[in-house]
Amino acid sequence: MDTIFTTERVRPLLARVREFVETELIPLEVGFSHNKLTDLIPVLDQKRTLVKAVGLWGLHLSEQDGGHGLTLCEFGQISEALAHAPFFGHYVFGCQAPDIGNTELLHKFASSELKERYLKPLMAGEIRSCFSMTEPEFAGSNPTRMATLAVRDGDDYVINGRKWFTSSADGSTFAVVMAVTNPDAVPHQRASMIIVPTDTPGFTIERNIPVFGEAGEGWFSHAEVTYTNCRVPLSNVIAGEGMGFRLAQERLGPGRVHHCMRWVGNAEKAFDLMCKRAVSREIEDGVMLGEKQFIQDFISESRAEIDACRLYVLNTAHMIDTVGVSNVRDAVSAIKFYVANAFLRVLDRAIQVHGALGVTDDTVLSAMYRHERGARIWDGADEVHKQNMAISILKKYGLDIKQKARELRQFRQMMEREKMLNDL
Amino acid sequence: MDTIFTTERVRPLLARVREFVETELIPLEVGFSHNKLTDLIPVLDQKRTLVKAVGLWGLHLSEQDGGHGLTLCEFGQISEALAHAPFFGHYVFGCQAPDIGNTELLHKFASSELKERYLKPLMAGEIRSCFSMTEPEFAGSNPTRMATLAVRDGDDYVINGRKWFTSSADGSTFAVVMAVTNPDAVPHQRASMIIVPTDTPGFTIERNIPVFGEAGEGWFSHAEVTYTNCRVPLSNVIAGEGMGFRLAQERLGPGRVHHCMRWVGNAEKAFDLMCKRAVSREIEDGVMLGEKQFIQDFISESRAEIDACRLYVLNTAHMIDTVGVSNVRDAVSAIKFYVANAFLRVLDRAIQVHGALGVTDDTVLSAMYRHERGARIWDGADEVHKQNMAISILKKYGLDIKQKARELRQFRQMMEREKMLNDL
Amino acid sequence: MDTIFTTERVRPLLARVREFVETELIPLEVGFSHNKLTDLIPVLDQKRTLVKAVGLWGLHLSEQDGGHGLTLCEFGQISEALAHAPFFGHYVFGCQAPDIGNTELLHKFASSELKERYLKPLMAGEIRSCFSMTEPEFAGSNPTRMATLAVRDGDDYVINGRKWFTSSADGSTFAVVMAVTNPDAVPHQRASMIIVPTDTPGFTIERNIPVFGEAGEGWFSHAEVTYTNCRVPLSNVIAGEGMGFRLAQERLGPGRVHHCMRWVGNAEKAFDLMCKRAVSREIEDGVMLGEKQFIQDFISESRAEIDACRLYVLNTAHMIDTVGVSNVRDAVSAIKFYVANAFLRVLDRAIQVHGALGVTDDTVLSAMYRHERGARIWDGADEVHKQNMAISILKKYGLDIKQKARELRQFRQMMEREKMLNDL
Amino acid sequence: MDTIFTTERVRPLLARVREFVETELIPLEVGFSHNKLTDLIPVLDQKRTLVKAVGLWGLHLSEQDGGHGLTLCEFGQISEALAHAPFFGHYVFGCQAPDIGNTELLHKFASSELKERYLKPLMAGEIRSCFSMTEPEFAGSNPTRMATLAVRDGDDYVINGRKWFTSSADGSTFAVVMAVTNPDAVPHQRASMIIVPTDTPGFTIERNIPVFGEAGEGWFSHAEVTYTNCRVPLSNVIAGEGMGFRLAQERLGPGRVHHCMRWVGNAEKAFDLMCKRAVSREIEDGVMLGEKQFIQDFISESRAEIDACRLYVLNTAHMIDTVGVSNVRDAVSAIKFYVANAFLRVLDRAIQVHGALGVTDDTVLSAMYRHERGARIWDGADEVHKQNMAISILKKYGLDIKQKARELRQFRQMMEREKMLNDL
Ligand SMILES: Cc1cc2nc3c(=O)[nH]c(=O)nc-3n(C[C@H](O)[C@H](O)[C@H](O)COP(=O)(O)OP(=O)(O)OC[C@H]3O[C@@H](n4cnc5c(N)ncnc54)[C@H](O)[C@@H]3O)c2cc1C
Ligand SMILES: Cc1cc2nc3c(=O)[nH]c(=O)nc-3n(C[C@H](O)[C@H](O)[C@H](O)COP(=O)(O)OP(=O)(O)OC[C@H]3O[C@@H](n4cnc5c(N)ncnc54)[C@H](O)[C@@H]3O)c2cc1C
Ligand SMILES: Cc1cc2nc3c(=O)[nH]c(=O)nc-3n(C[C@H](O)[C@H](O)[C@H](O)COP(=O)(O)OP(=O)(O)OC[C@H]3O[C@@H](n4cnc5c(N)ncnc54)[C@H](O)[C@@H]3O)c2cc1C
Ligand SMILES: Cc1cc2nc3c(=O)[nH]c(=O)nc-3n(C[C@H](O)[C@H](O)[C@H](O)COP(=O)(O)OP(=O)(O)OC[C@H]3O[C@@H](n4cnc5c(N)ncnc54)[C@H](O)[C@@H]3O)c2cc1C
Repeated sequence: MDTIFTTERVRPLLARVREFVETELIPLEVGFSHNKLTDLIPVLDQKRTLVKAVGLWGLHLSEQDGGHGLTLCEFGQISEALAHAPFFGHYVFGCQAPDIGNTELLHKFASSELKERYLKPLMAGEIRSCFSMTEPEFAGSNPTRMATLAVRDGDDYVINGRKWFTSSADGSTFAVVMAVTNPDAVPHQRASMIIVPTDTPGFTIERNIPVFGEAGEGWFSHAEVTYTNCRVPLSNVIAGEGMGFRLAQERLGPGRVHHCMRWVGNAEKAFDLMCKRAVSREIEDGVMLGEKQFIQDFISESRAEIDACRLYVLNTAHMIDTVGVSNVRDAVSAIKFYVANAFLRVLDRAIQVHGALGVTDDTVLSAMYRHERGARIWDGADEVHKQNMAISILKKYGLDIKQKARELRQFRQMMEREKMLNDL
Repeated sequence: MDTIFTTERVRPLLARVREFVETELIPLEVGFSHNKLTDLIPVLDQKRTLVKAVGLWGLHLSEQDGGHGLTLCEFGQISEALAHAPFFGHYVFGCQAPDIGNTELLHKFASSELKERYLKPLMAGEIRSCFSMTEPEFAGSNPTRMATLAVRDGDDYVINGRKWFTSSADGSTFAVVMAVTNPDAVPHQRASMIIVPTDTPGFTIERNIPVFGEAGEGWFSHAEVTYTNCRVPLSNVIAGEGMGFRLAQERLGPGRVHHCMRWVGNAEKAFDLMCKRAVSREIEDGVMLGEKQFIQDFISESRAEIDACRLYVLNTAHMIDTVGVSNVRDAVSAIKFYVANAFLRVLDRAIQVHGALGVTDDTVLSAMYRHERGARIWDGADEVHKQNMAISILKKYGLDIKQKARELRQFRQMMEREKMLNDL
Repeated sequence: MDTIFTTERVRPLLARVREFVETELIPLEVGFSHNKLTDLIPVLDQKRTLVKAVGLWGLHLSEQDGGHGLTLCEFGQISEALAHAPFFGHYVFGCQAPDIGNTELLHKFASSELKERYLKPLMAGEIRSCFSMTEPEFAGSNPTRMATLAVRDGDDYVINGRKWFTSSADGSTFAVVMAVTNPDAVPHQRASMIIVPTDTPGFTIERNIPVFGEAGEGWFSHAEVTYTNCRVPLSNVIAGEGMGFRLAQERLGPGRVHHCMRWVGNAEKAFDLMCKRAVSREIEDGVMLGEKQFIQDFISESRAEIDACRLYVLNTAHMIDTVGVSNVRDAVSAIKFYVANAFLRVLDRAIQVHGALGVTDDTVLSAMYRHERGARIWDGADEVHKQNMAISILKKYGLDIKQKARELRQFRQMMEREKMLNDL
Repeated sequence: MDTIFTTERVRPLLARVREFVETELIPLEVGFSHNKLTDLIPVLDQKRTLVKAVGLWGLHLSEQDGGHGLTLCEFGQISEALAHAPFFGHYVFGCQAPDIGNTELLHKFASSELKERYLKPLMAGEIRSCFSMTEPEFAGSNPTRMATLAVRDGDDYVINGRKWFTSSADGSTFAVVMAVTNPDAVPHQRASMIIVPTDTPGFTIERNIPVFGEAGEGWFSHAEVTYTNCRVPLSNVIAGEGMGFRLAQERLGPGRVHHCMRWVGNAEKAFDLMCKRAVSREIEDGVMLGEKQFIQDFISESRAEIDACRLYVLNTAHMIDTVGVSNVRDAVSAIKFYVANAFLRVLDRAIQVHGALGVTDDTVLSAMYRHERGARIWDGADEVHKQNMAISILKKYGLDIKQKARELRQFRQMMEREKMLNDL
């Protein structure tokens, strides 16, 4: 669907992307259940070559990096189109998470040396990367708390810690690791982002974590990783020590837009399958499923939700492009939970309409669920975004909840100290 | 909130409208429960004079009619701003329903004679009008079925029937009545729209119908009306005989956008009251309601819903402006139910946050509910829009449900006939 | 519907009550919108005489008080049956709120002198009473905070304060007032319940508060009341000074069951009207509304919700009867919010199915909404019950949130003190 | 939780079952993600031996069959207790679907010869069985339509067709197959249930269908099965030709109660894990997740939903026990969709509270989702139950929708014939 956000520049690109997705990628869904996703990687890599050949590679990149210099809002529309082929689209066009996020991060903040070594092959699709922040023992929802330490030792950092859900670590060339470098700083300035090549001694993938029945491998996986005396040069830090938290924020802003537009496209995919089933499944002699109002309800609710979501995300992207992400934090939070939830509802309806077929792996629906239920959790759980957004709104009404929380934390620490004193 | 839809032309107007609403209208809400809405009409009429004086009257009108020639999308934004003063805003600026709808109707379809007599004073705010389609005994959801008859008699129509929910009939100068003129035509061409002055003998307001505890009067009312041998000249028909259904469609398209933008504004109003309460109601010593996550949930969900709705409606208005309403019927259906439901949810949350205060008439919240619960019913109930929209979507997928329904109707009629034959 | 909870004792009573409701009370609903509820009181009082004549008066009372000694669980079933005539049933059978609550309170805790003077005529339906706890300026959700003071002066209390939502104060003979008697006690022991005759000098009904468009009068009203140097004898305190909070808890336990069973009955009423409309409203030629799946969805969801609610409430009542209310506090909280929400959903669906008729006062639906939207607020708002219930559940899992909150309160007080010191 | 339905007979059994589940089965969940469910079967079979040893085997069986002769309502409570160990409990106690359903079926309707051969070893847990009704090409929601044919040939039936979702066919000794024997009978009398040993030539498991990422094997699987000239003796038919549909109804009545009570137990399991996480996950320094109202909301809503569901199911079981399933069809429909939906909501909340851990296979949550999302589909999809239930309710109000549907079907057939004639 074209919208007011569809510029002259992006329109022809969009048409070509849609065409490619339709003719080259969607046919790969046939017999979906008979293949493991990982078995498809070689096929997808061939398609990558084709994408490069027709000049559609790297649509998220700046012009100097060989891309088309699209705005976030323009690229969002490309991203939606790619998501009509869930799992395949973004990978084949070289803009899959987490690489796209790392690309943006390095592009903006890495030294030219790091760019040369890591960013260049990443943009070319020659290597893959991962992002290693969350730890099993600490609430990822509060990233100021973590245990992984990077200690200076001469010209090196020595890193120790345990991370999990380091997506796509399996097969990656490097990891961007979040580690505490300045334990005594204020919470938001304790951690740094450091590049760790995965062949560094002490970097171990303990397992690919089974998620909804599938551990996966390669790009399609989420690793549990230990860092044991991993030694990397000090120059591997991105944008300087103590910047970890700030970079994470920077990384997540556009990242959320990327996810949201992907979900909009995924939702369209589910919607399309739902409608196709509705017009072809005969429920009584001569009566199709789509004639039933229960199904009509699913369809109309879904159509409305998807269209509202698309406009909401594109408008947010447009605001980021024009007034900057720091002015639309609330909107970024809002689309994150709003779109994730809408998408999962649409998906659930599509599954329901397919009956038993919907729970099988014969369509992409169940795989979408398995890979995307996490949408309401990663990059900030629903509850965290809602809380933060409300706090920010109420501040404009004169109530500073964060300030009160700070005081409360101080009190708690005081209490702890007193208790300890008393216990002596 | 400015959006991509905010043009240079509308921005300064918007600022002036907001300012007027803030300083002239919102103060009228003080002591809300102590006044009947109808007692406020004289005050509101003074404000109308002011609006005219500052050149903000008739913002929905074309330039030749003394307006600003705003697009539907631009006017929608004005409408939202007016809705920050629910009940007052649109009336004071002369663009309240049902007059705005009748204005558009007459503007497009009435003869110059009818325009001169009825449209001109209507646009000037000198008279009021009403729209009289729904009948108590027939499902308004299916407007092809009605009993009111307009029979030709010489140069006149003689009209007989019973209507209800003829909003604002009380005090109106004329009614636009939907009546069957061609009972033997196909269903969609049976009825016509005819202007009936309310001082026509036989036009009787039986009662103002009590709605959620209040019958109201004048503009704030919904009449039950009987037409008993009401005689009006044939020239009072709008756009010719049999055009009633088509006109109704035409009237309702932009009408739905008007309602939706009003609801977005009303929702903002409720949101604003909710936040104000959240930061000022002390729930424990030193703890404000807004610090509770239950309330934060209400606030963030509401913020997201309202913003998504606004973009959805404005985009639809923009499409109507650019590609015409007939190309976006689905979107018009979608915003109708989507926004009505979102608005009522926001309103319900605002009531809840106010506790006992929320159910009183001390704030505008309860009055909004009473006047707007109908939003999910009038202008097409949720269920009707969802059904129609799904039917239209599935047609593109190759399933023609309407065609099947036509065949079914034929069958039912056949069955009836057979039964009657058998019963003889 | 009979359930496993329907004892031999209650079954014949139930049958008689249902019969009475059907033949004597439901007919009064005809022309509902044409009468103010208050105009019906004389008619209802005649029905009361009839109830007494046939021996069905006071079914909530113990045998020694002339009742049938029903258990809470048995009476709950009677209460549901009465609620098929919303507004009329409980009043006519003499077990309407707030009198039933005051009856239970006085029965259990009042001195024999107070019983003689106030309880006896109350049980006989000769007088009415009210309960005066909530204040406009303090969050009713946290009843440890209030400003009304009762100061000892010789043998009297002198009471000063402002209350609101003192339901049915208009026309009452006495109020049970919650007032602070011991300001320096721990929060839960500061207040007392004191009987104040409404003809006490200084007792003033400032207004009957307009609620959803209707201020009402007499039993059908909610008063704002000021107490200005109201002087009552010390012996008017119930169960001793400082017992206010405890009594409130005692009063609310069974009170919630009463409300819940009333809502179950009200929901059945709405359900019945919905089904009747579904089978009689012709939506297309020969097609009834009930043939549409949207409506079928409403009906089945409602049926399931009501039946689940009934069992849940009766089981809770049964537990109160057998193991005592203090052992089922969580269940009491749960039914309070669960049933209120289910009821309001059913009611909303019934309104929707009636179309425009649903928002009028021509049926009892809109009146039910107006009188019962508060169900999610009074006697503990949804959010308060959910919070308390979760806190209680998690305590069993080893997390004592209340204890933490106590520490936090202390901290806040400390902070305040420090701030004050610093400000000096 | 004991309820009013907990009889003296079942209470001690319940205690023993809970104890067994707690000490023998729940420990097997440790390291859940490291084992395939199928690898656990040998361990589970050892536990079966233990169950038999302590006299708890076959709690669903009649006394003459070596069981305890529990009522459906009593066994329901056992079933809930077993479901605290999802996947393990019912299997270990020998009352897992689909065997329990086949047991009941054969017990009631099979000839003594079939009982001897198939029922006896089934009850003893020596063999397993499956139920083969649904076909991929026909809507399972309308079981009068199917293609599998059983044609008489001498003393045999020769069966041809394709079925899918024949759960647990892998490793089963026999299948109960639904096949058309009387194609010319009225729809509901066309099919029969026939026992087909799985070693019959022509019986082929084409695949175990991958469901949410896992094809499984053995008991934990759903097979696609072809029947190619499968020859079985006429005496393998259960209860006579044409009885298939009726038997399916019989089988599904108590079957739905079984599923529902299992879901109640599963929901308790999810609830328990949710609470444990809430009290142990530190979200800020010293602050546990359970202190957050978002989580409290999840917990209280879940507690209320589960408790209401339990009572609803047990009451329905009690009604089946006392007045017979044919008198409570609506309630059976209601619990089916009501409980399935409530359970899935609770489960989804538990996943959310666990964050990333929730989507992994490290807890049983994700496996429950994968195995139970189908709950809203099998044994009658939500929409089918809601439709049927509403139709049944509205019939009591005088609207016979089924009758109208019959007429409509006739019309459609007539139309088809006419079209064919016209096309000639
Ligand atoms: C599929 C998937 C891929 C991922 N990929 C990556 C990756 O590549 N790299 C990486 O570093 N991480 C990754 N993650 C991890 C992700 O960032 C974390 O899961 C997320 O930050 C949440 O942290 P958590 O899982 O520790 O949950 P927790 O922080 O323990 O939170 C659990 C739940 O508690 C609730 N909650 C949290 N905070 C609050 C609050 N303040 N108030 C109320 N409720 C609250 C929410 O419901 C939340 O879901 C991935 C996760 C998933 C599921
Ligand atoms: C406040 C208010 C103001 C109004 N103002 C005017 C006015 O000024 N002029 C005027 O002419 N009319 C007015 N109306 C009437 C309005 O147009 C009708 O109420 C509306 O068309 C619905 O018709 P109905 O009320 O007869 O409901 P019905 O047509 O009887 O429908 C009742 C319900 O049935 C359901 N339903 C209907 N069709 C279907 C279907 N196909 N499938 C499934 N479910 C269905 C819906 O839930 C609907 O709410 C007003 C109504 C309200 C409430
Ligand atoms: C129709 C009606 C009849 C009544 N009758 C009587 C009567 O006869 N006598 C009498 O004394 N009182 C009566 N009341 C008052 C009633 O007891 C109070 O309304 C109730 O206790 C809530 O108090 P509040 O209105 O001050 O709301 P507040 O306490 O200000 O709460 C407002 C809202 O905040 C939210 N909230 C509150 N606490 C929390 C929390 N801890 N966490 C998160 N959210 C929270 C809830 O959404 C709540 O609705 C009546 C009320 C109504 C509506
Ligand atoms: C995990 C699992 C285990 C199973 N085990 C067995 C087994 O052991 N043996 C066996 O024979 N079968 C089994 N089944 C199959 C099950 O019985 C069917 O899936 C079920 O009957 C639905 O049929 P269907 O899948 O063909 O869906 P369809 O009939 O095609 O229906 C698809 C969807 O359409 C909608 N729908 C259907 N009818 C209507 C209507 N009238 N109005 C509105 N909407 C409607 C519903 O949303 C439904 O989900 C199993 C299924 C699952 C998922």
